[in-house]
Amino acid sequence: MSTPGNPTTPTTATESTAAEIRALVASFADVARRFDLDRLADYYAADVRAFDAINQLEFRGRDVYLRHWADCLAQCNGPMIFETDHLEIESAGDLAVAHCLTRCGGVDDQGQEHTSWMRATIVFRKLAGRWQTVHEHFSLPVDMETGQMLGGLKP
Amino acid sequence: MSTPGNPTTPTTATESTAAEIRALVASFADVARRFDLDRLADYYAADVRAFDAINQLEFRGRDVYLRHWADCLAQCNGPMIFETDHLEIESAGDLAVAHCLTRCGGVDDQGQEHTSWMRATIVFRKLAGRWQTVHEHFSLPVDMETGQMLGGLKP
Repeated sequence: MSTPGNPTTPTTATESTAAEIRALVASFADVARRFDLDRLADYYAADVRAFDAINQLEFRGRDVYLRHWADCLAQCNGPMIFETDHLEIESAGDLAVAHCLTRCGGVDDQGQEHTSWMRATIVFRKLAGRWQTVHEHFSLPVDMETGQMLGGLKP
Repeated sequence: MSTPGNPTTPTTATESTAAEIRALVASFADVARRFDLDRLADYYAADVRAFDAINQLEFRGRDVYLRHWADCLAQCNGPMIFETDHLEIESAGDLAVAHCLTRCGGVDDQGQEHTSWMRATIVFRKLAGRWQTVHEHFSLPVDMETGQMLGGLKP
């Protein structure tokens, strides 16, 4: 695991990458919360392969995946909750991997939050000078006996 | 994405890594099918962080995760099916990521297969001269309306 060094140690390339990826994961969550599909597109490589938590085994290509994102965001009424925590980063050269837990959901008319914790693994490649997501994997675990998603688990 | 080159092109470090990771993913599946927990242990780094398809948000550490593997394998009666396909690999230096689809399940007393396609993302780090899994993420997608796992999807 790579973590940003404390201020008294020299910054290495890996620490610098970890700081960049942390900032990227945070800004991505912010863009998702604002339903900004145009800016979401900037995070993905054209040939991204995505394993999302719902509906299909995989989505191939940015355009296909963004249509899925649009469908998901259309289900949200009111404020969306999308918060990442427990983030850890691996990196080497122009490849980086972030894995974290993500609290995702919405707020109903009575102001009540309805959220579940998901797992997220995001693989970035530095392409044309900027980090782009080439693969991501979001999921919830399921109960082995019932096949029902375990939406009430907490870290 | 990195793929092994054809025999007429020179082998690069990345192509060599991809070949190593392909072999590792194949041998891992073979060890899992043989319920060989001792050899499964060899694939994991001591501080692996695993997001598995069932039961918990995450498992931290090889010993904890192997107990979960033992519980899973104990549910299997008869031959286990664990086949990977659609494998793609990213690598840089001592870091590699494999993502693939995995057909997993068993065979009942009547010889009937019961399997589901899962998604797998596996992150390897070369530690002490050999590739070890530092993070993995297995999952099935769920139906957004019912929360039920989608065990019948095919690639």
